[in-house]
Amino acid sequence: MKLDLTIPSLGPCHVDSPLKLSKQKGISTFNYSDDTQKILYDTSLKNFEACLAKGEAPLAFEKAGPREKIYFDPSKTKAAIVTCGGLCPGINNVIRGLVMGLYYRYGVNNTIGIKYGYEGFIPSFGHPFVELTPRNVADIHKSGGTILGSSRGKQNVSEVVDTLDRHNINILFAIGGDGTLRGVQAIVEEIERRGLKIAVAGIPKTIDNDINFIEKSFGFETAFTTANPIIRDAHNEAKGAYNGIAIVKLMGRDSGFIAVNAALSMPDVNFVIIPEMDFELEGENGLLAAIQRRLAKTKHALVVVAEGAGQFLFNNELGTDASGNIKYHDIGIFLKDKIVEHFKKQNMPATVKYIDPSYIIRSAPANASDSVFCGKLALNAVHGAMAGKTGFVVGRWNNQFIHLPIPVAVKERMKIDLQGELWWNVLEATGQPMEMKS
Amino acid sequence: MKLDLTIPSLGPCHVDSPLKLSKQKGISTFNYSDDTQKILYDTSLKNFEACLAKGEAPLAFEKAGPREKIYFDPSKTKAAIVTCGGLCPGINNVIRGLVMGLYYRYGVNNTIGIKYGYEGFIPSFGHPFVELTPRNVADIHKSGGTILGSSRGKQNVSEVVDTLDRHNINILFAIGGDGTLRGVQAIVEEIERRGLKIAVAGIPKTIDNDINFIEKSFGFETAFTTANPIIRDAHNEAKGAYNGIAIVKLMGRDSGFIAVNAALSMPDVNFVIIPEMDFELEGENGLLAAIQRRLAKTKHALVVVAEGAGQFLFNNELGTDASGNIKYHDIGIFLKDKIVEHFKKQNMPATVKYIDPSYIIRSAPANASDSVFCGKLALNAVHGAMAGKTGFVVGRWNNQFIHLPIPVAVKERMKIDLQGELWWNVLEATGQPMEMKS
Amino acid sequence: MKLDLTIPSLGPCHVDSPLKLSKQKGISTFNYSDDTQKILYDTSLKNFEACLAKGEAPLAFEKAGPREKIYFDPSKTKAAIVTCGGLCPGINNVIRGLVMGLYYRYGVNNTIGIKYGYEGFIPSFGHPFVELTPRNVADIHKSGGTILGSSRGKQNVSEVVDTLDRHNINILFAIGGDGTLRGVQAIVEEIERRGLKIAVAGIPKTIDNDINFIEKSFGFETAFTTANPIIRDAHNEAKGAYNGIAIVKLMGRDSGFIAVNAALSMPDVNFVIIPEMDFELEGENGLLAAIQRRLAKTKHALVVVAEGAGQFLFNNELGTDASGNIKYHDIGIFLKDKIVEHFKKQNMPATVKYIDPSYIIRSAPANASDSVFCGKLALNAVHGAMAGKTGFVVGRWNNQFIHLPIPVAVKERMKIDLQGELWWNVLEATGQPMEMKS
Amino acid sequence: MKLDLTIPSLGPCHVDSPLKLSKQKGISTFNYSDDTQKILYDTSLKNFEACLAKGEAPLAFEKAGPREKIYFDPSKTKAAIVTCGGLCPGINNVIRGLVMGLYYRYGVNNTIGIKYGYEGFIPSFGHPFVELTPRNVADIHKSGGTILGSSRGKQNVSEVVDTLDRHNINILFAIGGDGTLRGVQAIVEEIERRGLKIAVAGIPKTIDNDINFIEKSFGFETAFTTANPIIRDAHNEAKGAYNGIAIVKLMGRDSGFIAVNAALSMPDVNFVIIPEMDFELEGENGLLAAIQRRLAKTKHALVVVAEGAGQFLFNNELGTDASGNIKYHDIGIFLKDKIVEHFKKQNMPATVKYIDPSYIIRSAPANASDSVFCGKLALNAVHGAMAGKTGFVVGRWNNQFIHLPIPVAVKERMKIDLQGELWWNVLEATGQPMEMKS
Repeated sequence: MKLDLTIPSLGPCHVDSPLKLSKQKGISTFNYSDDTQKILYDTSLKNFEACLAKGEAPLAFEKAGPREKIYFDPSKTKAAIVTCGGLCPGINNVIRGLVMGLYYRYGVNNTIGIKYGYEGFIPSFGHPFVELTPRNVADIHKSGGTILGSSRGKQNVSEVVDTLDRHNINILFAIGGDGTLRGVQAIVEEIERRGLKIAVAGIPKTIDNDINFIEKSFGFETAFTTANPIIRDAHNEAKGAYNGIAIVKLMGRDSGFIAVNAALSMPDVNFVIIPEMDFELEGENGLLAAIQRRLAKTKHALVVVAEGAGQFLFNNELGTDASGNIKYHDIGIFLKDKIVEHFKKQNMPATVKYIDPSYIIRSAPANASDSVFCGKLALNAVHGAMAGKTGFVVGRWNNQFIHLPIPVAVKERMKIDLQGELWWNVLEATGQPMEMKS
Repeated sequence: MKLDLTIPSLGPCHVDSPLKLSKQKGISTFNYSDDTQKILYDTSLKNFEACLAKGEAPLAFEKAGPREKIYFDPSKTKAAIVTCGGLCPGINNVIRGLVMGLYYRYGVNNTIGIKYGYEGFIPSFGHPFVELTPRNVADIHKSGGTILGSSRGKQNVSEVVDTLDRHNINILFAIGGDGTLRGVQAIVEEIERRGLKIAVAGIPKTIDNDINFIEKSFGFETAFTTANPIIRDAHNEAKGAYNGIAIVKLMGRDSGFIAVNAALSMPDVNFVIIPEMDFELEGENGLLAAIQRRLAKTKHALVVVAEGAGQFLFNNELGTDASGNIKYHDIGIFLKDKIVEHFKKQNMPATVKYIDPSYIIRSAPANASDSVFCGKLALNAVHGAMAGKTGFVVGRWNNQFIHLPIPVAVKERMKIDLQGELWWNVLEATGQPMEMKS
Repeated sequence: MKLDLTIPSLGPCHVDSPLKLSKQKGISTFNYSDDTQKILYDTSLKNFEACLAKGEAPLAFEKAGPREKIYFDPSKTKAAIVTCGGLCPGINNVIRGLVMGLYYRYGVNNTIGIKYGYEGFIPSFGHPFVELTPRNVADIHKSGGTILGSSRGKQNVSEVVDTLDRHNINILFAIGGDGTLRGVQAIVEEIERRGLKIAVAGIPKTIDNDINFIEKSFGFETAFTTANPIIRDAHNEAKGAYNGIAIVKLMGRDSGFIAVNAALSMPDVNFVIIPEMDFELEGENGLLAAIQRRLAKTKHALVVVAEGAGQFLFNNELGTDASGNIKYHDIGIFLKDKIVEHFKKQNMPATVKYIDPSYIIRSAPANASDSVFCGKLALNAVHGAMAGKTGFVVGRWNNQFIHLPIPVAVKERMKIDLQGELWWNVLEATGQPMEMKS
Repeated sequence: MKLDLTIPSLGPCHVDSPLKLSKQKGISTFNYSDDTQKILYDTSLKNFEACLAKGEAPLAFEKAGPREKIYFDPSKTKAAIVTCGGLCPGINNVIRGLVMGLYYRYGVNNTIGIKYGYEGFIPSFGHPFVELTPRNVADIHKSGGTILGSSRGKQNVSEVVDTLDRHNINILFAIGGDGTLRGVQAIVEEIERRGLKIAVAGIPKTIDNDINFIEKSFGFETAFTTANPIIRDAHNEAKGAYNGIAIVKLMGRDSGFIAVNAALSMPDVNFVIIPEMDFELEGENGLLAAIQRRLAKTKHALVVVAEGAGQFLFNNELGTDASGNIKYHDIGIFLKDKIVEHFKKQNMPATVKYIDPSYIIRSAPANASDSVFCGKLALNAVHGAMAGKTGFVVGRWNNQFIHLPIPVAVKERMKIDLQGELWWNVLEATGQPMEMKS
């Protein structure tokens, strides 16, 4: 794999970091890192040997972390934070972490919040800025949602940069999904075109856990943790009726990570249906027949389906939403109807319970593990931006925080490999057929 | 109010209770009660004075509790338990309480479970009985649902009694809603017609908390407790978008108790819409205009709607389900569509998030308070049935367990009084208009 | 029982209530109540008949609720709130309810918070007042604790009244336990002595649920709900070792309500030891032998002990704390040591796990049910105080809010009747011996 | 670093795996791995370059996973599971995963559970074996603890192997901490000495997360997740009193991972005291003075202390427990007393609240994330053991499951690097002084 992993920069760093750290173990607190520190993409010995044989440098990501010299003079720095797209557990933790990191670590005491996503930059919407101080963000991590509000969709890039420029904003932190990050990239390019010295850092947000080269996205664990008791109780619904079938629809537009992890965390699930998989409803090997075989044996079945699964079962397309995402058919309702119809046709008694927790999953406060993660993520974004890096996101690879150029992060979406270990774990835990098609 | 509150009985009690209690305070453990102990229906002093003036005995319910003499000889008694209708938190606690009470208090060691509601009595369904011992019910209270399974709908009363008779069942405990209790009454009458000595006790189950003369039904508190964080997080959804409107649909077919208590427990709610209330959508005083005024002020709104609300807004009827309940239109989806349409017409940006936790609310395990309650409820049902009472339910009035004749319990459904204190509390907590119609 | 249940009053009410209610059902919203509405103390038919026979009026409590005429002119009214003694779940809910009720219901927009209990009234402590507005209390119910801070102990009554007078405070709401309420009574008397027109309302706070004539105190349910999973998991500790014994110490200085309800809510408990009971450790009938018999049968035992239990087992006294409460010996540690010692003596392997959740129980946020309750309780306190009532607490009897004169509320502590139903339920659920002494 | 990472083996594998997988991507489900697949220890590019320069192979761990050829014939294989040492969330999930993996993946239908740790092997204790079938482990993951019971301490290795041999046990899975694993190693060596063909796999259990080369141990995340609301509410205790100080003691004998992660997850904590750190109580730079400075500023302080911290503050030693662990002084109580004493000496009002959740943390059921992890961990142990590997534990490195020779795993304990990123994150989040000594 060939990828340009260079992180753009506003220029050389001449300001001493106010952090009192060291680059050398044994001398004070050892923590400064520098751009030569890199983390291997592939950690297998085989790849090491292959690189050795070909005389090639292995693919490696720039390590995130505090730099000894920084670009911005903290006393004169003004930062802005914007949150875009759908909710995700932990957004407020990230906002809090950015404000606290800027203020207490670097002494930046001028941070503003942009209301309602990119809309907040556009004068015609009339959304006021929000002052973000340690005091007014102190408790926000205890609530889900985003205190700044959010919106979907693009806004005029030139107007956004006008606003950044007009208000003397030096650093913009944009918390959002791949649509947002593409917008960030456009902003970065417009800033460069104008020769402005504004750093823009992306904080990748995807409850679906599907951004490239980011092994864990914030809020994802909270999402499947929230789904866990819902699945447990859906199992009770299934068992509560003769031939009871419970269907739980979970988030996951293009990937089934939430569905898969929720199912693995509560191994009462019998079928997991995800966007990555092909399957048929009808026929001897289809899903309906598989459910019927399960009922014959145990009199109940529990199905978890990701919202983006089985879109090939629909004939028409629904267009796109404000964020440019393709609108999806409701596979949950569709499956429910098909299952009801199937057992009616078979003249077999069956009771179907449909459960769609929808926003319940995404508006919860971050759990403990995500809270820890969000705090570290935000701090690393602050370090990168203060060092004048721009057009990057903070990623996570091999349990280390790294810098990723935005185009690399948004190149494609991470998906579940149907021949990989994770999916195979699901097949083992559920006992569902390896293939459900003829 | 005139009501016949006499509890039917299989006959005089000649067996000494195996409980070592006393009827007299100060002598051993004081706890036996008797049929002359009654609890006043109306606890106001005014009613006392009115009765006095008219020389009338006040309405009073027979107190539940252990009797010194019982009807059944425990060593020869066989009990059966059946669970009917929809799930409700605490069913397993009640089953556990019945089995434990029969076994440890009275020495009845022959209790069976009937599978899948009344179906389990009918030979043609082929559902086997389940043996219920202290050992196999020991941990069931930790799970929601019902270990016996349930079903909706009536079965042939004669066949049910045939089964009771054929299997020498002396006591039947039926856990179910008002439909089930009407079925119990028919069984009781058929038993009487045949001259059988079988006691039938009803355990009133209604997650909606709407059975007559029962001030608290089991599972109800768990239901609104489960809804509490869902409302909290829905508020985050509402605030997360400019003019964000979140709608949460909660259970409540004919009454709004869950919606009302959930809203009072998380006072971020701005509108509570319940089955008891009349309202209009359109017009200056309608709901849509009220929401619009709210948005104008605060840019977000949170609506809680009970599933049975606003059925008058639909033109057609949907028939009935297997339990004979009228099928309801989906008021949640309807409201969502109407709200979206309204703001589109007004050319006003608004984002609507619809949340329907559906079965999530009812399949949860009982919370601590409901667990305590279920244990006591079950024990009182055991006491009543062992004393040969039949055709009764165990109710709760003025914090005491009472016996209610089934016809009194199912006469009508308890509803929220729109001129009462509870609803007025909602109006105060939400600030919603007292009337939303012209 | 003879009790003076008259509620003191500042004088006749001449101001029209700003609430738009009615006293008559069918005319607008029906909700005004008046001082002639009373709730019977004893709801048994037998008591009714006894009163009838003796020609005596039954004991009855004044019903709380909004009055048609009030004493204070809202636009000129200034209220203060103080929180005293130990934490209890729901204090913030009550504060919020008071502020919201005063502001939105009555139009009182001048409410201050007194910091750190009665200390906040005493100039020498230098604690500033806190302005309490709907905006700054909007979210406080989501956290446990008290935003005002608290303290134990009395302060000079004259200085307290000086402060009330000097700052033109018309109404004082004091949230606290029986020590606090005795302080309230002294303040009321000093106010009367000085001829001031200041209403003082007590909001009874007792996590132990042991204030007289108050069938449910706020926070109590949250307390035993919080203990519920702790007991569940302690059971795992007990079962995790051969002859494993887990001891959980719960709050309950003079009464065992929390211990009892927690145990009933998670019926894995084998022994509940409460302050009301007498018991012996040693001897054939003592607790240690009872535990040993239990181990012989099942190899594990789970003991719940209330903190105030078994104080007679200690020889010396520890004096009193700042609130004047007698300091208690640590019965939990004592039991643990005695049990370890016993089995060592017996040369019987046994593993003892001691769990003392202490403050965990009382600093949690109010659960859904307590939240509903706190909101109603606060509103009723506002109604009473606005109507010029003073020296009263808002109580709860037969599911109705009532007014209680403070001397009646603090006369004695409510305790568990060892010959009553609740304790008998515990004996049944645990299977512990009825008596554990020779 | 030089380490022998070779995994011992019972011999060559000749049996076809019953799993229908492939070693080659694109052909059926791709999942078989083999012993040549290794995961790099150091994932930095610098290490890659250093190895290159020195011509050295980098340190790498054998990848865990299913093998195409296995050692044991499943139809003739008998497995045993033993759980040792203290409880940890997830033990039951691991037991369930082992039983399910053996049964459904490999067709091993003869698995037994050893009761109460190593004791269960020793005839003189008389503990019976427990039959472990899919049916009787189906729901155990919903409870904390261990269904097998546990014990501390060593047993005679020869007797243990006698029992394995006598009962024809082919595979032993031992779930336990480093003491247990050392015992496993002795068993492995005795087995080898006798020339037996018994595989022994260790499942490393350490709630403290401190086993070498294992970046995440099961139960650890649940532990700090359970501590999270306790810290949140302790903060309310601290704020609830003037100069309120709350102290929360958390598990962590030799390392502060739980304390650190709990504090990072709920950033209200002001001081984290861990075993790795040196500190002084007294003096201008000591902890007491630091707390005093904090109080002067904000009137409250929240301290989290790991149980093994500050042992150097005590003069005497307490000996060892049954597991051979050094007994620790109670640093929590000690700190509490010292703090109370300090402020009394200073004549400064201060209220100290001490909270020790002790076993509450470790007996909770596994959270969603740990449940997923335990399932995978168990499956990998099954794969390794079925392939005849012995004397190994399943570890986790760079998000991959690996095989570790037991001597490497138990060589030393993992600790928090006081010059590393994690600790620095704590210093930043708490604002505590970098050093608290003169």
